[in-house]
Amino acid sequence: MPCAQRRVRLLAVTPDALSLIYAAFRQCYHTGFVGEMWPRLVAGEISRDTQAAFVRQVLESGHDSPVEHVSFTFAVEGVSRACTHQLVRHRIASYSQQSQRYVDETDFDYLVPPAIARNPAALERFEACMTEIASAYQELKALLEAAGRGAKAKEDARFVLPQAAESKIVVTMNCRSLLHFFSLRCCSRAQWEVRGLANDMLALCRDALPELFAAAGARCEQLGYCPEGERFTCGRYPLRTIA
Amino acid sequence: MPCAQRRVRLLAVTPDALSLIYAAFRQCYHTGFVGEMWPRLVAGEISRDTQAAFVRQVLESGHDSPVEHVSFTFAVEGVSRACTHQLVRHRIASYSQQSQRYVDETDFDYLVPPAIARNPAALERFEACMTEIASAYQELKALLEAAGRGAKAKEDARFVLPQAAESKIVVTMNCRSLLHFFSLRCCSRAQWEVRGLANDMLALCRDALPELFAAAGARCEQLGYCPEGERFTCGRYPLRTIA
Amino acid sequence: MPCAQRRVRLLAVTPDALSLIYAAFRQCYHTGFVGEMWPRLVAGEISRDTQAAFVRQVLESGHDSPVEHVSFTFAVEGVSRACTHQLVRHRIASYSQQSQRYVDETDFDYLVPPAIARNPAALERFEACMTEIASAYQELKALLEAAGRGAKAKEDARFVLPQAAESKIVVTMNCRSLLHFFSLRCCSRAQWEVRGLANDMLALCRDALPELFAAAGARCEQLGYCPEGERFTCGRYPLRTIA
Amino acid sequence: MPCAQRRVRLLAVTPDALSLIYAAFRQCYHTGFVGEMWPRLVAGEISRDTQAAFVRQVLESGHDSPVEHVSFTFAVEGVSRACTHQLVRHRIASYSQQSQRYVDETDFDYLVPPAIARNPAALERFEACMTEIASAYQELKALLEAAGRGAKAKEDARFVLPQAAESKIVVTMNCRSLLHFFSLRCCSRAQWEVRGLANDMLALCRDALPELFAAAGARCEQLGYCPEGERFTCGRYPLRTIA
Repeated sequence: MPCAQRRVRLLAVTPDALSLIYAAFRQCYHTGFVGEMWPRLVAGEISRDTQAAFVRQVLESGHDSPVEHVSFTFAVEGVSRACTHQLVRHRIASYSQQSQRYVDETDFDYLVPPAIARNPAALERFEACMTEIASAYQELKALLEAAGRGAKAKEDARFVLPQAAESKIVVTMNCRSLLHFFSLRCCSRAQWEVRGLANDMLALCRDALPELFAAAGARCEQLGYCPEGERFTCGRYPLRTIA
Repeated sequence: MPCAQRRVRLLAVTPDALSLIYAAFRQCYHTGFVGEMWPRLVAGEISRDTQAAFVRQVLESGHDSPVEHVSFTFAVEGVSRACTHQLVRHRIASYSQQSQRYVDETDFDYLVPPAIARNPAALERFEACMTEIASAYQELKALLEAAGRGAKAKEDARFVLPQAAESKIVVTMNCRSLLHFFSLRCCSRAQWEVRGLANDMLALCRDALPELFAAAGARCEQLGYCPEGERFTCGRYPLRTIA
Repeated sequence: MPCAQRRVRLLAVTPDALSLIYAAFRQCYHTGFVGEMWPRLVAGEISRDTQAAFVRQVLESGHDSPVEHVSFTFAVEGVSRACTHQLVRHRIASYSQQSQRYVDETDFDYLVPPAIARNPAALERFEACMTEIASAYQELKALLEAAGRGAKAKEDARFVLPQAAESKIVVTMNCRSLLHFFSLRCCSRAQWEVRGLANDMLALCRDALPELFAAAGARCEQLGYCPEGERFTCGRYPLRTIA
Repeated sequence: MPCAQRRVRLLAVTPDALSLIYAAFRQCYHTGFVGEMWPRLVAGEISRDTQAAFVRQVLESGHDSPVEHVSFTFAVEGVSRACTHQLVRHRIASYSQQSQRYVDETDFDYLVPPAIARNPAALERFEACMTEIASAYQELKALLEAAGRGAKAKEDARFVLPQAAESKIVVTMNCRSLLHFFSLRCCSRAQWEVRGLANDMLALCRDALPELFAAAGARCEQLGYCPEGERFTCGRYPLRTIA
């Protein structure tokens, strides 16, 4: 029952991602067929810089649906159920999450909030609670199995598991949904854990497709001002002043 | 910190629901404008039976998108976080859920799985665990507040809260999404709690719009056979035999 | 075969719309159950002004999903197929459109672009073309019926129908989707016809729910600047200057 | 202004598609982390047959969301606007379509319905109409440009273009959405053109991922009976008889 570490692994990106976005944008305004142009695109006959410049220009004019053609799939472990409950609220995405109904959670791992980890008294209290929960889980599972509940004992016993309990999840989002996710969850208003997850995902996106993600992040970084209002702003960017 | 009871209240249904579905279906196949016909529809000049028969006939032919024009909004309390995590996986829906980051969970309520409730030894163990969690929550919150964490103490302390912790949520689904939700969650394979929630929602839907929901429920009730396979079937309907 | 006029009729709005949005927002931050508070809300015990102020404040902080609980359904006639092809690209919405496969389009109505309507030579050429198309439709339908094509003659003959051909459609969008639709389609970059449709829908939304829609419209009206870039701006608002 | 031929080119498939679906399914029921297992999966240490058998088994039990992690992107040309209007009604998908507002449609190509193509009198009438429309488009464009309408002349003149006018579109759908699309559009009730498109897409899917798409197609092929009802059935499968 160790404390869990978040790990995010990129399982898949749509191949030829920049060319695909470029081709989709071009098809909107082009007389010819991008299916025809495709072999030359992937052979690099139109430079990555030219493609990136075109994509940037159309994106800036507010036309962003073509970035949807590219998706990223991540395998995530070492995140709490609190975090995945926030994650799966993003509906334009696909999720396959480890089930607490079917997977045995004896000796579950858990996440420790940083403010607790750096406070020895709080950490001790937190860990004592985790230990008690683990023992309750095991005892309940045994009692229910003894009462003939079979495989369903796990789904009953899970009711004691904490929000801190570690989960694993496979996540696919297209680039438009990712940009939206980052705009909300890289913001300092997001909870530390989902913000950490968003930042990990963004780093992988930047490696794979810098032309699209280099400038991505919280909304303030696109807007040049903080849209969260006086009550919530972190102060990194000025609030919007209506001219 | 009492044990919670599920309550589902219907807050809103699209008005003139049957007429709206009828009008939408008619518009697909009709030369005239249903906007023109609308006052006569809502005045009852075409009988509810005639409308229902038309809707049923087109639905049976596999054309189901017009039922999307009608939505139901429910306020739900007395459900566990385990249950809402299953609920919000239904993506064609809108959710507003009580936040454990902002709401104080001292003396949280909790749900008890029936197999635990009817097993005195299990119930005692379960309740002892809930009591321990509540005291950990309060002590952690106090420790973190004392350490200057302010309002964020709640969002850290919530990591000890159990999956059993009670939540409240406002849910809106359109009728197509509801029919899909019922087909999966009224099935005996669904966990007891989300199945209970689905059945409560279905009862309210049947009251408000019997023409659409009288025959709704688990997939087997539409199909006439169980699609869950030998391993998972509850035996209520025969498995499908490929002719 | 007259020239068609657009008509938009509001068929349905979610009842108690402002209270529903207020209740959904409240549930996120409130200890109690909004299902409990609901009868007092709809009885007006919390004033419309108080509710509106709360909604505005949370919306401004960037939390906009609760407005999804309210939907509007419109019946639309007198719009071209060009316009509906743009409309149905908005995917978070439900549509029931008059089918050219099943509805007889002999003597179809059509839309005339304003720049053609005010140019006598262009209008004459346009109308001559419409007349020729109508006669081709009728002759093809007769020829195909004579060849035994039956009811499918219509779906073949429709291939000659112009983009100008009038269509009828029932549209449901929730308020979040509506605000997005207005932000794009009330903009002067949108084509005249879908912009006219968006403005008609916005006027009906403003009547029904002014607290939410009074300030809605093109993106510039929210942002205070034009995001469309130098090449596309209409000049009504200044371009964004990065500070 | 030749008659157009449909061409569908597969631009992209999510890499390691079968392993990705397998990994996503496994994560739901597996204690370990599929991110850990991933290098061995893509190295082929678990055979394609084993993976396929697992996927098939879970799919059959009604759990189909993990197939969403894999997407296909197609470039399509040689389809009519009638066809793309049907295509884009599938909302869980991404589209980038050639714009008739921005692309010059002088000498547009067009599609000819087969029942017209094989009927000499109908074909002659159809082609005469296409010729008249092309000349109207050109004359209107010239008249509007002469009247100072500039680049917007195209978006006005396009109102005469027929439903038959050829379009090009880039389409991305995930596998769950594709299976649904095929179930409706490979059915003989679908119009010949979108059915041809669906069959072309299905053939490409079968080549790339036979484990998932070998058995895909119209609903009857999964159900073993025709769900379209007596009025619409093509007779290939028996109607469902309620046992």
